Formats: sequence, C-alpha cells, structure tokens
Amino acid sequence: MFDPTAPIGVFDSGLGGLTVASAIAQRLPHEGMIYLGDTARVPYGTRSPATVVRYARNNAAFLADAGIKLLVVACNTVSAQGLGGLADGSGIPVVGVIRPGARAALDASAGGPIAVLGTQVTVRSLAYEHAIHELDPGRPVHALACPLFVPLVEEGWNNHTVTRMVAREYLAGLAGTEVDTIILGCTHYPIIRGVIAEAAAEVLGREVTIVDSATAVADQVATLLGEWGRGAPVTAEGRRRFVVTDAPDRIGAAAAQFWGGGDAPTFEHVDVTDRGVGATGTG
Amino acid sequence: MFDPTAPIGVFDSGLGGLTVASAIAQRLPHEGMIYLGDTARVPYGTRSPATVVRYARNNAAFLADAGIKLLVVACNTVSAQGLGGLADGSGIPVVGVIRPGARAALDASAGGPIAVLGTQVTVRSLAYEHAIHELDPGRPVHALACPLFVPLVEEGWNNHTVTRMVAREYLAGLAGTEVDTIILGCTHYPIIRGVIAEAAAEVLGREVTIVDSATAVADQVATLLGEWGRGAPVTAEGRRRFVVTDAPDRIGAAAAQFWGGGDAPTFEHVDVTDRGVGATGTG
Repeated sequence: MFDPTAPIGVFDSGLGGLTVASAIAQRLPHEGMIYLGDTARVPYGTRSPATVVRYARNNAAFLADAGIKLLVVACNTVSAQGLGGLADGSGIPVVGVIRPGARAALDASAGGPIAVLGTQVTVRSLAYEHAIHELDPGRPVHALACPLFVPLVEEGWNNHTVTRMVAREYLAGLAGTEVDTIILGCTHYPIIRGVIAEAAAEVLGREVTIVDSATAVADQVATLLGEWGRGAPVTAEGRRRFVVTDAPDRIGAAAAQFWGGGDAPTFEHVDVTDRGVGATGTG
Repeated sequence: MFDPTAPIGVFDSGLGGLTVASAIAQRLPHEGMIYLGDTARVPYGTRSPATVVRYARNNAAFLADAGIKLLVVACNTVSAQGLGGLADGSGIPVVGVIRPGARAALDASAGGPIAVLGTQVTVRSLAYEHAIHELDPGRPVHALACPLFVPLVEEGWNNHTVTRMVAREYLAGLAGTEVDTIILGCTHYPIIRGVIAEAAAEVLGREVTIVDSATAVADQVATLLGEWGRGAPVTAEGRRRFVVTDAPDRIGAAAAQFWGGGDAPTFEHVDVTDRGVGATGTG
C-alpha cells in the first residue's frame, strides 16, 4: 500500500541544497522530508562525471532505503549528469534542478539569450543548453564556470570586495552579449545573488533578471504530487529529518545560511558509501 | 627479507603533495616512489577530524598493500591529526610534514615569533604550535586559517589581483606582531609563495622568511633511510608510480604545476575506499 505521508527525499553534495529543501518546505508544509548532504565528499563540481554518478547513486540508495516517495536531486552537478539510473527499479520519480531552472529562465526572459553560471562539471555537461533547447531550440545560451563562488560563500564573504571582484571577472565573459536572464546553476549562488546582479549590471550596462531553481523545483514537486494523487493530507505534520555524511564544526552556521528564515535544521550523521553499490555492479 | 628498492609511499588529499614528492625525487633520485592523491575526496581541510583520519587510513592501507618501505604523509591536515594508527603493526616508519616544517622554521628564524598559514583543520589542531614548542617551548606562534588559498591556486589565479587581496586580508592578522618567519602549512601554498611574501611585507613593514615543508621532509626522509640502512643502492632506477582516486579533466595541468620542472607525472586511477577498514574496526 502506498503511504502518502512517506517523505520526499532531497540530496545535495553538501548544504547548498537546503535552499531547494527550504523552498519545498514552504510550498508544501504538510510533506515529510529527508535531506541528505554528502558533506564528507563535497564538492562534486570539480570531480569526474563517473565519480559524481557513483556518489549520487550512494545518496539515492540511502534515501530509497529510508522509504521516500519522491526523490529531488538538489545538486546541479548531479542533475547535469542526467537522472537516469538513480532510482531505477524503485518506482520512485526523480526531479532534478536543471529542467525546472531552464523553464523558469525561459518564463522570465524577454526573449534574449540566457546565461548560466555553474561549476566546471555543470558547464561542461551542456545540460542547461540541452534543457533550454528542448523548450526553445533557437535560444542562445552562454554558460560560465564560476568555481570560486562556492568557496567564497563557504568562507562567508558574501558581501566582500573580493567576491565582487571575482563576480566581475567571471561575468566579464558576458560582455557584448544581449543576455537578459541569468540562471544561478548552483545551489550556493543564491546567497550572493545581489553581488552577481550588480556585476552583471556593470558588465552589461543594464539590469538583468536572475533566476534560481529552488522555487521552480518546489512548484514542479507540487505539480507532480498533485497529478500523481500522492500528496500528503493537509492534516499530516510534515516531519523533517536532516542527515549529513560528515559534521564539521561550522555546519550549524552554514545550514542556517542556506535554510534561510525559521529554525535552522539540526543534523544526524550517517554513512552512505556502501549504499547501492551492489545494484550498480561496482561492488 | 627487506628489499631496499621497495618504494617510498607518499600520499596527500590531492595533488598539492606533489610539491613534497618532487622534493624527495630530487633529493633521492634512486629511490622508488608511489604517490597517491585522494582526488575523489579532496579537500580534507574543511572536514571533521574523524573523517580526515578515516580517509588517511584508507590511503595508508593502500600504500602498505603496495609494499612501501616508508610512508610520507604529504598532507598538513592529516599530519596535524597525528600519525599514530596510520601504519600500526606494519613496521613501516611514518614521516609527516609538521615536525620537519616546524624545525625548518626554527632554523630559519632569527628568534622572533613564527606564523603558520594553513587550513581550518590544521590551524584548529594546534599541531604546529605543539611541534614548535617541543623544540622551543617559549616561542610565540601565530596561526592563521587561509581557506581560500587552495581554491585560488586550483583556479590558476596564482598572480591575480584577487589572490593578492585575499592574501592581504588573511595576513592582516599578523599586523603588530614581531613575526620573522612564516611556515606555509599546506602543500598548495608554495605555488603562491611570492604573493604571500608580498602581502606579509606590506602588513609587517619588513621582509620575512617563508619556509615550506617540502625540502625539510626530503631531508628528513634521507636522514631516516641513512640511519636505518635501508636506502636504495645508487644503481637502482628509482621507478615512480602516480595514482589518484579520481581523474578530473584538468589533472595534467594541475599536476605539472605542483611537480615543477621536468616531466609531469601521468596517473593511474585506483579505488582506496575499502582499504584498511577492517583493521580499524569500522567495517
């Protein structure tokens, strides 16, 4: 028997995906949730695609074992490698961040080129280009790798002169384009949305619209659960559990930053490295 | 029977330890070597001490299985957690980077306070303070965490204005001190030695001596093998093998940067995650 109060599973390479989890919790307060941050192996954005896929399968298997009804991959780097194979055979639907982000950008754009900021792996995957071109084949897309944004946010330099300089340097890659919309293609980037907007305005000489995937993913989850008839009843208490694979000292402050308003989550420690390896034939 | 041509094992969380491996190869060209970079789980410097120790044990067990005669821990973060337990029961001596670095700094210093730059985990461990105070109990030590230096070096911004600004910001912590010597307590930092020296001179108003552990570790290895009577004969060919746990796209360029002059290493891919777990009772 299907249990509509089964939780939604959300994972990310670290804590950045809490921006997505928080949007889902606000949109769907009655839904239960398990959030998994793979803090023992973060970051994913500089690793090989094969390693990213292996880590993602460990995470998905852990959440599947925990009895989730829906899997949200709140990590652009993983979503960019494709979601196939993550929940195969389990009957669990999977929502990534790339397609909702691409759709949100097209909705926000006045028809001009779209820029995507992301990690090396995300940019090289061309995943945003593909997702945008599925919906609008002729739309020009400019993708920029911004590898220093994550460490700057993790250092807490969200409003620092250095962060503004780095943003100007990366966004200089858009000079001379007609870009009107920028996708924040990494869950850390919404924390420095203002700095990115300022640098973009300086480089392009005009305001541009900045979109992130968090709200779009929450809408997509709500739509999917509604169409599928598997949303939790409004009487459900929407219990949330937060787990990480490593708990370094500053985890509380970082989590509060990504979660935003309200009570900051508290975390349990889990090990996921042996999950799902048999099923993928590598163990 | 002991085989004096058995290789020296060297590991680091990533490729930065190649600065140490390169110094050993120059000092001891007849010695064989296996270098292991745990690129699938780099960086270690922001993780919990327990996770750092677990990863280090995987690496040490892999190298012990490969038949090394001596283990060099070319990672400050691991060395700072102590070397006990890494090669227990194997009879393999272990050399870290902290004590040789501390000794080199005391040799270089004119008697003033010593500064240590390192990762969060290294700085919090107080390992350099302890190593310096073993040799000179009254010597003042100032430790500064510099978490953005590693991503800046990995981005290749070795001479960038941003890197200079970040260095000035971190080294401002030394303003008003009488520091005369700075230890580069992370294997990435020698790549930006010039930028660090410039920022230090600006903050302190005078030149200071900058030391790194690479040469000191190579000297320590040479001394140990000599005293132990287990150096390779000068007729040995000193074969070197380089392995990593993940091979992302830019590994060749990064390796060449850390290895310095001469032929850049080529790498094999290995998995170490299941090594040594039985021995530590966690698997």
